[in-house]
Amino acid sequence: MSKIELNKRQEKIVEIVKANGPITGEQIADQLHLTRATLRPDLAILTMAGFLEARPRVGYYYTGKTDTQRLTDELKKLQVKDFQSIPIVVSVNVSVYDAICTMFLEDVGTLFVVDNQSYLVGVLSRKDLLRTSIGKQELESIPVNIIMTRMPNITVCRQDDLILDVANALIEKQIDALPVVKDTEMGLEVIGRITKTNMTKILVDFASDDIS
Amino acid sequence: MSKIELNKRQEKIVEIVKANGPITGEQIADQLHLTRATLRPDLAILTMAGFLEARPRVGYYYTGKTDTQRLTDELKKLQVKDFQSIPIVVSVNVSVYDAICTMFLEDVGTLFVVDNQSYLVGVLSRKDLLRTSIGKQELESIPVNIIMTRMPNITVCRQDDLILDVANALIEKQIDALPVVKDTEMGLEVIGRITKTNMTKILVDFASDDIS
Repeated sequence: MSKIELNKRQEKIVEIVKANGPITGEQIADQLHLTRATLRPDLAILTMAGFLEARPRVGYYYTGKTDTQRLTDELKKLQVKDFQSIPIVVSVNVSVYDAICTMFLEDVGTLFVVDNQSYLVGVLSRKDLLRTSIGKQELESIPVNIIMTRMPNITVCRQDDLILDVANALIEKQIDALPVVKDTEMGLEVIGRITKTNMTKILVDFASDDIS
Repeated sequence: MSKIELNKRQEKIVEIVKANGPITGEQIADQLHLTRATLRPDLAILTMAGFLEARPRVGYYYTGKTDTQRLTDELKKLQVKDFQSIPIVVSVNVSVYDAICTMFLEDVGTLFVVDNQSYLVGVLSRKDLLRTSIGKQELESIPVNIIMTRMPNITVCRQDDLILDVANALIEKQIDALPVVKDTEMGLEVIGRITKTNMTKILVDFASDDIS
């Protein structure tokens, strides 16, 4: 999270741009009796941190964003790839009983089901497995493809999707996890999993300023 | 979330206190050629928002907190009572089969088990129920008290506990939900439930500035 303490010179630059923007780097340097080169790092920091924006042939202007806005802006930028967990997959040919065993062994709440070429074909939640297990059938003899959620009813995400969009999807669809997929010509490759646990961790990290 | 846009006079006050603090309200008023009474609302706002602190017989001083710090301070102050969901309870006398049906009917991932006086005695997760359902016993004939997590192994929280402490507990204990309880002389009354879904919603609300 960009939690920036400006130094005195940077604060002065912000004040000057606030009062006179749009203003060129040269004009700012003049006002501070410094060279343009000396100011270059400060201007770069202020622009990257979102205090100022630079427009070619116009100059710098003040964005008017408070630290708070910049902070939620940062939160809005978080991407799946930085927070995803390892996916646990089972083959479409295994039985419901084997899927339940895998779920306990791997200690996850959601399994992704893949075909013989390892492409995503289904999702199994703890709820799906529980529903089946109270039925009267033999769990060893039911293949997972009978009970899994299948395409096109699976909600997926990609590595560069925004964490907030995934959080919204988890809530709206009332599910615990999404598969993170990579598009290939043959189908969707499962490369990660993102869950409400990841979201809870992000909340904790966010409050302890651990996200950068 | 306190996302405060200061007006010009408030900005001036902050500048004066930054430069001269600790400083009394009267001295600030003098510098601005205003009366103490005129400034009272501004000083109250600046103090409540965390820009300034007031110490009796000393005056106002600048806290040096950035908006970002104030924002995470706000997040750290969130309490369970403002975000908890309704708890779903079952009696300790019901069967595992009935508990599973309740879980599906109410569409929750965690049930709280209460005794005949309605005090908390156990917790049942979807995982507990799934584990039991793949056993060879008749689910209708197993009472929940055989398989539930029981005191003192239940992690509970109270209404005025901090959301962040609960989020940490959910992660550390690897559970999906905590009961929110009220202490009585006879035992713990279950008055709410707080889950990773609540945490995911808080994250979304936080980014869309909906938390106040």
